[in-house]
Amino acid sequence: MRRNCHLKLVMWLVCGVSITGFVHGRNAFAESTATHGATPRQEVHIERLTPAYWRITFDIPPFNIFGPETIPQLSEAITQLERDPQVKVVVFDSAVPGFFLTHYDFVPPLSDTTNLAPGPTGLPPLPDMLVRLSRAPVVSIVSIRGRATGVGSELSLASDMRFASREKAILSQWEVGAALVPGGGPMARLPRLMGRGRALEVLLGGEDIPGDLAERYGYVNRALPDAELDHFVDALARRIAGFDKQSIADIKRLVDIPTLPPDSEIGAEWDAFLGSAHRPQAQQNLKRLLEMGLQTKPDVEKRLPYYTGTLAQ
Amino acid sequence: MRRNCHLKLVMWLVCGVSITGFVHGRNAFAESTATHGATPRQEVHIERLTPAYWRITFDIPPFNIFGPETIPQLSEAITQLERDPQVKVVVFDSAVPGFFLTHYDFVPPLSDTTNLAPGPTGLPPLPDMLVRLSRAPVVSIVSIRGRATGVGSELSLASDMRFASREKAILSQWEVGAALVPGGGPMARLPRLMGRGRALEVLLGGEDIPGDLAERYGYVNRALPDAELDHFVDALARRIAGFDKQSIADIKRLVDIPTLPPDSEIGAEWDAFLGSAHRPQAQQNLKRLLEMGLQTKPDVEKRLPYYTGTLAQ
Amino acid sequence: MRRNCHLKLVMWLVCGVSITGFVHGRNAFAESTATHGATPRQEVHIERLTPAYWRITFDIPPFNIFGPETIPQLSEAITQLERDPQVKVVVFDSAVPGFFLTHYDFVPPLSDTTNLAPGPTGLPPLPDMLVRLSRAPVVSIVSIRGRATGVGSELSLASDMRFASREKAILSQWEVGAALVPGGGPMARLPRLMGRGRALEVLLGGEDIPGDLAERYGYVNRALPDAELDHFVDALARRIAGFDKQSIADIKRLVDIPTLPPDSEIGAEWDAFLGSAHRPQAQQNLKRLLEMGLQTKPDVEKRLPYYTGTLAQ
Repeated sequence: MRRNCHLKLVMWLVCGVSITGFVHGRNAFAESTATHGATPRQEVHIERLTPAYWRITFDIPPFNIFGPETIPQLSEAITQLERDPQVKVVVFDSAVPGFFLTHYDFVPPLSDTTNLAPGPTGLPPLPDMLVRLSRAPVVSIVSIRGRATGVGSELSLASDMRFASREKAILSQWEVGAALVPGGGPMARLPRLMGRGRALEVLLGGEDIPGDLAERYGYVNRALPDAELDHFVDALARRIAGFDKQSIADIKRLVDIPTLPPDSEIGAEWDAFLGSAHRPQAQQNLKRLLEMGLQTKPDVEKRLPYYTGTLAQ
Repeated sequence: MRRNCHLKLVMWLVCGVSITGFVHGRNAFAESTATHGATPRQEVHIERLTPAYWRITFDIPPFNIFGPETIPQLSEAITQLERDPQVKVVVFDSAVPGFFLTHYDFVPPLSDTTNLAPGPTGLPPLPDMLVRLSRAPVVSIVSIRGRATGVGSELSLASDMRFASREKAILSQWEVGAALVPGGGPMARLPRLMGRGRALEVLLGGEDIPGDLAERYGYVNRALPDAELDHFVDALARRIAGFDKQSIADIKRLVDIPTLPPDSEIGAEWDAFLGSAHRPQAQQNLKRLLEMGLQTKPDVEKRLPYYTGTLAQ
Repeated sequence: MRRNCHLKLVMWLVCGVSITGFVHGRNAFAESTATHGATPRQEVHIERLTPAYWRITFDIPPFNIFGPETIPQLSEAITQLERDPQVKVVVFDSAVPGFFLTHYDFVPPLSDTTNLAPGPTGLPPLPDMLVRLSRAPVVSIVSIRGRATGVGSELSLASDMRFASREKAILSQWEVGAALVPGGGPMARLPRLMGRGRALEVLLGGEDIPGDLAERYGYVNRALPDAELDHFVDALARRIAGFDKQSIADIKRLVDIPTLPPDSEIGAEWDAFLGSAHRPQAQQNLKRLLEMGLQTKPDVEKRLPYYTGTLAQ
């Protein structure tokens, strides 16, 4: 698989010129590296509310776009969750209004991602850390306010529980609209939560799924009134943090058996994502979306399904 | 298995006299072949709305009863879906008011069905084509208005997505009420969509499931107001038809892995159906239902669970 | 595994002194054996409404706490269901207002349970009889009014269908709050009904789940208005009782294939329960809960999650 990825990387470098040479994209990328310098900006904040209850907050304004530079930061946070002897529960949330965590960053060359060494599971870093989060002996809860699109949806699906703002949460796997196959596990995880039919609707329609529909479909545990979301999640997390760490880990491990996809399914998705990413249709669609304002204009980020819907001939 | 089916066929031919000799049934069968002659009536219409977006419409008035003569027509349509290089999405609907697609035709002798050669998967034709529909690299959507009972429910379950009229859709697996085991996959497919408890209720209660309950149970993706159903399905189908065919096929193939039942489960259901069909209790129940007006009187077709409920001693 | 359990039993006997020596507990246990004498009180009533339709009623006032003395009675009832040639459907309900069936009895020494011989499946008696209920060729329906907590929830999950009073049913797996791992199958059965996320919320939050939320999560088939529950369940049971026993058994057997957990998962849960039960944290939590009034004060039984929530340091 490694050799295969390497081959794909070469193909991307050849095919990808049109994207990495894209004017706005190139600028955005240049700015980003210039601003951050040697010590990259901290995009993933860990707050230890108590030794047993942590909060991890995504802070990548203006759109919480997840890029190759985010990967080691989130991976390090998950490693801490795996190893800390006291932590029992972690809540993921966002510091950026309107966005929980969105799609992958299409401005840096894909080689910034594919050059990263595989993680402890042997999977590439992004699927590796999602798999490790699912298996960690710690309860992970996402509190979704704003858009959880692409990687944001995939992180949510890899977490143990999902709670959403009824008014302000949007979940989606939008990738098919860019001629991409999602790479972070949703073909494995969505149907195990909501059944084949609704999973195919989410994955092949590429539409925004608001909080109440997300609840009806089982995409999230519950959609709560926005004013109640923080209190509900905090109370649940504090309750769990008061319970016995060993019993929590044992219960989760036993639930893992019938529910977690095998790594082979997760690896196959990443390969399919890479395969799609170097096909001309995806490159053309991404180029057009970047030209329309993807990653720069709020309206494109906020109404992504509308814009992907305009790409068809 | 083939030899086994052959044996069952012989038993059916022996036991089945009471049914094939049933007066109303025989008449209906005779009329039917007489009217259609050598070229059977076209019951399955394919309309290519665009090269990427097809509609397949069932048109078997007055009740959209699915019979042995329908099998090759639907099978041919599915073969075209499998092979056409341009089609991406197909919508199944009905031309017959009140009926999406209902139960199997009990008037022709069962040998008309069991004599048909197995399909490409090695399964008998009916389960074969449902399995092929599920695996086709094309998105299948059913738009359910009226009754989807028996084969109609089974085709819906084998399709990728199901949308129902809130006011006018009825789904059911009514077979247990006739002392039959369903044969087209619902024991494999229903619990994978809605869990064991609700699947057993549908399969063992044999009751009508209206649109809103079907949505709550996950029998359909969504139940929509009847006035919105056509527009919703058409918009979703056109949206998907604008996406990349390869990405659609890759996403569907990856979702297939954790969601599709193995062919062995599907084959076992067909065997159980045949086994039930030649037991005296099923023959007696079917005879009585045909006498009450099954396949001839609208009230019996529309209130089938009521009539099956009257059969018990 | 047997030797392992034996070892655990010895450890429990050593560690368990604090519980079996607990004043109120000891009294309750003494009274209980004194009152019942050689012929234990009948806690599990079987009523044959018709030869095909039975009702099994739990009658263990005041809280329907399930103890080691209940095991052989329920096991015997399930054996009758397995062997009777006429029964097709059984409804489980309660004779005790406010309680369907609750948690395991923590007053008798655990050895009263672990000393019982394994059942026909080779599993210990409690998981054995739940597994046998799931596989029996008879349709099992629980009618939940009042609390179905711990064993009550586990019996419900092992049954084929679950219907709940919207106003008066409460389901929960509260065990994590006592630093216990549940032992009767919910880590295997809950996620297969409601998906990983909601199952982890139920199992790790240890909160009460009222009827309407239980329906939204798929914990029960449906929550019905309390005034309609009995009629609905009775009508469904009578309907099924009128159908063909062989077809019922065949349909259930085919649904079993994709839905029932393997016995290995069930056995692993029981081992994890025993492992948790002899850890100091569980013993301390149970001791404190018994001191607060568990098994004696109605308020503790009725608001169990509140009391488990007070145990954290």
